[in-house]
Amino acid sequence: MHDSSKSRAASATLPDVQKSPDTRNIPIDKVGVRRVRFPIAVLDRSNEKQHTIGNFTLTVDLPSHFKGTHMSRFLEALNSHGREVSVDSLPALLHEMTVKLHAEQAHVEVTFPYFMLKKAPVTGKEGMMEYTCGFNAVGNGECQVDLFARVPVATLCPCSKEISDYGAHNQRGWVTVRVETRGHVWLEELIEMIEESASCALFPVLKRPDEKWVTEHAYENPRFVEDLVREVAIRFDQRDCISAYEIEVENEESIHAHNAYAYLKRAK
Amino acid sequence: MHDSSKSRAASATLPDVQKSPDTRNIPIDKVGVRRVRFPIAVLDRSNEKQHTIGNFTLTVDLPSHFKGTHMSRFLEALNSHGREVSVDSLPALLHEMTVKLHAEQAHVEVTFPYFMLKKAPVTGKEGMMEYTCGFNAVGNGECQVDLFARVPVATLCPCSKEISDYGAHNQRGWVTVRVETRGHVWLEELIEMIEESASCALFPVLKRPDEKWVTEHAYENPRFVEDLVREVAIRFDQRDCISAYEIEVENEESIHAHNAYAYLKRAK
Amino acid sequence: MHDSSKSRAASATLPDVQKSPDTRNIPIDKVGVRRVRFPIAVLDRSNEKQHTIGNFTLTVDLPSHFKGTHMSRFLEALNSHGREVSVDSLPALLHEMTVKLHAEQAHVEVTFPYFMLKKAPVTGKEGMMEYTCGFNAVGNGECQVDLFARVPVATLCPCSKEISDYGAHNQRGWVTVRVETRGHVWLEELIEMIEESASCALFPVLKRPDEKWVTEHAYENPRFVEDLVREVAIRFDQRDCISAYEIEVENEESIHAHNAYAYLKRAK
Amino acid sequence: MHDSSKSRAASATLPDVQKSPDTRNIPIDKVGVRRVRFPIAVLDRSNEKQHTIGNFTLTVDLPSHFKGTHMSRFLEALNSHGREVSVDSLPALLHEMTVKLHAEQAHVEVTFPYFMLKKAPVTGKEGMMEYTCGFNAVGNGECQVDLFARVPVATLCPCSKEISDYGAHNQRGWVTVRVETRGHVWLEELIEMIEESASCALFPVLKRPDEKWVTEHAYENPRFVEDLVREVAIRFDQRDCISAYEIEVENEESIHAHNAYAYLKRAK
Repeated sequence: MHDSSKSRAASATLPDVQKSPDTRNIPIDKVGVRRVRFPIAVLDRSNEKQHTIGNFTLTVDLPSHFKGTHMSRFLEALNSHGREVSVDSLPALLHEMTVKLHAEQAHVEVTFPYFMLKKAPVTGKEGMMEYTCGFNAVGNGECQVDLFARVPVATLCPCSKEISDYGAHNQRGWVTVRVETRGHVWLEELIEMIEESASCALFPVLKRPDEKWVTEHAYENPRFVEDLVREVAIRFDQRDCISAYEIEVENEESIHAHNAYAYLKRAK
Repeated sequence: MHDSSKSRAASATLPDVQKSPDTRNIPIDKVGVRRVRFPIAVLDRSNEKQHTIGNFTLTVDLPSHFKGTHMSRFLEALNSHGREVSVDSLPALLHEMTVKLHAEQAHVEVTFPYFMLKKAPVTGKEGMMEYTCGFNAVGNGECQVDLFARVPVATLCPCSKEISDYGAHNQRGWVTVRVETRGHVWLEELIEMIEESASCALFPVLKRPDEKWVTEHAYENPRFVEDLVREVAIRFDQRDCISAYEIEVENEESIHAHNAYAYLKRAK
Repeated sequence: MHDSSKSRAASATLPDVQKSPDTRNIPIDKVGVRRVRFPIAVLDRSNEKQHTIGNFTLTVDLPSHFKGTHMSRFLEALNSHGREVSVDSLPALLHEMTVKLHAEQAHVEVTFPYFMLKKAPVTGKEGMMEYTCGFNAVGNGECQVDLFARVPVATLCPCSKEISDYGAHNQRGWVTVRVETRGHVWLEELIEMIEESASCALFPVLKRPDEKWVTEHAYENPRFVEDLVREVAIRFDQRDCISAYEIEVENEESIHAHNAYAYLKRAK
Repeated sequence: MHDSSKSRAASATLPDVQKSPDTRNIPIDKVGVRRVRFPIAVLDRSNEKQHTIGNFTLTVDLPSHFKGTHMSRFLEALNSHGREVSVDSLPALLHEMTVKLHAEQAHVEVTFPYFMLKKAPVTGKEGMMEYTCGFNAVGNGECQVDLFARVPVATLCPCSKEISDYGAHNQRGWVTVRVETRGHVWLEELIEMIEESASCALFPVLKRPDEKWVTEHAYENPRFVEDLVREVAIRFDQRDCISAYEIEVENEESIHAHNAYAYLKRAK
């Protein structure tokens, strides 16, 4: 289907519209590609490579004097860079992007499903639990990589428990964090700090003794969204490696069709 | 911007590609437009017109000898037909579609947000509660209009309640029904039958005495997805106007990241 | 179902958990409710009230010494405030929220489907075209209301046009803007400035002469995402009423499964 | 955290609510779990295992005399069954589900992102292209496994090309197929038959000579949604291994905000 000599010839004669000068005098903060799906391997804490699928946004700045960027080079950089993605490997990808695209600064945002093997609290039955994690890297040679995690948990309402003769409404809640680090922090650590802050963690497999345990554990640990956002903040404050963070909690209230929400941003 | 004499002239001379013959000998079941968003008014049980926004799929069958259908005519039919959409008004729209598009049969599927004013169970505080409702109409002159409703409810787990010393996990669940009728049934009636079948209905506004009531009410009425699908079926069976139905229940389990699910289809 | 004397009695004796003191010493930036769906009317440029459906996030700040906020009061504020939502009416809602919730500052974010009657460029055939618009209001008595719009357009690739003997790939693109104003700007004006910046606007109804016009118009006005973001910026720069803006463009490329993307933020 | 002797003891004494008799006399078509996310490996045509992430719905029928099913057993079956999922391995999972859950029939629906290495048409530049694929298996020992694929393509409008002096609107379209087979069919074959039927396939990496090629190729092969659904049908008809199929095409029209749609179902 393709003929490389013909292709080279063709390429040489085809005009490069993107490279043409632009007179509107407007530099653009970020230009690139989004929703790029790519199979990757992430190194997890148990030192195994976890195969997953990245959803990438790759961008660079564009100076005012160029009409456009060369979008295909983002994909070439991603393909050539290989499939292993980590806090340590992202600076090289950023650097390659700035070189290939003649840019000052590059951004890589990637999110991916991330699995942890999780044991039921009483029977120890194992299953795979999914979280959405990610990295947000910006820079050139020197670069900053922030961590992202989105973790489902159970929350039980302290007010409902206090005022009711029996029972208490509870629900699935979602905790989303973006964390700036100044040392190594595992995604697993973020997930564990979040799960500890909730009324109870979620589990993939629960037999009846486990279900009894999680029901009673949640009842013993009621949490408003306000409590949950503060409990996560306390744990992040205790870790020197975490230099700044954003925490969002959204509870899919089981008594309403709308959600309860709390948001906290802090730089240490 | 437009000049109708020029436009008529242009139209007369432009070839009609859709109308050209097709030799592949393949009739198509449904051809048309989807995700057409259009402001509509729906008559509700309190005899007031409720303004909402329809999400339409409009299709017709296409005989094997035509290359294509004329997509713009679906939009013209919708625009000319006016904004009031009901079980009674849909046959006229279907008929107009079959005439304009030279088809044997037309389909209109429309879903829309539907609001009911709802009072808190103890204090009576009022608020607006949203449901997703819809109609599915098929035919020509004679036509069948099915009803659609998607209703969020609370479900409390009977097993968790039974085995735990205190508390019981509960969560938001979603009940989706498609109903074939042989007489008039209000969307409000479907919604009420579904809410009665759950551990508890959801409410837009709940003060503390209400929250106590819904917490205890749910605890007193535990429901598996299996119970919920059966309780809705019992109510539908009791109504002669309902001749067939499909019921789907999906519980956003507060102890798992996955959902519990039940599905039932029955023609009487 | 409800008995107000009993309810008042109940309310008086039920503990107020939210009001209890908190010793974790962590103020929360935003606490409130999200995904609150509520029917509203928005005043449009033709001086008519347009019925639509708001998707609200209502939040306040929470001082460190309170355990929680009173979530039901957000819904009460929304219900009591009435259904007409505009740049002019939002300050009153913000004020009511700060009073009811004893907060320093309140935030209202609302997005809604917004329709404009739009004529085909040649035949003048009319139809309803949907945009997603919104307001983002923050403050107490004095408050700032930013505008939001998300507009689908057509973009035709300048490079593809230049290098190909015939044709040029084109696609649906989405332009999302957030605008800070220091005077009145209609949502319709934002939409028009965006549509003018694209290769071509989209239309609900197009007859053949119209389709010829839009096809040729897009071919005559090729735009990269970079061009589109700059063209919108130029128009925003020309308007004194606009004091700051963010523009995002995402092209659903018809030659790739991923999207092209450009982002620009500027304060004048 | 867990103590197995205690757990066994607890389990023995905890009541089994699900097993209790039900007198409502309503059998349920499908009961189970949904949105179960699980890392899997799928064997691809190049004989390599492709790591991906399954989104599972696992259900069984429930006879009228049981109150509920045992949801945790679905997860245990999935965990014990291992991570390799294929047309050949699904019957064993179905069988395990019917045994563990005392059911007559089981259903497994799984969808997953599926990647193919794809070369640009002129330069041969390689990249990864994502499709959504899946299996739908139902039965007990004997079982039927249907294939699912959702493929993005480019479509160029024959009418727009014919009536315009230059250019032609084109866009991303989505082809979704469900296929019943009576012999082995690779997912890759389905994808290729669909891509051949479109105006042009999509590609992850395109350099300028490639972009010229795909632009001109699409222009030379205009397709309505009607053409596309028929072209796919013709290819499915030619394959004896395919005994029945459903084809859905949805074009994200670049001249409208709504989509063009065609649907065809056929059993040979």
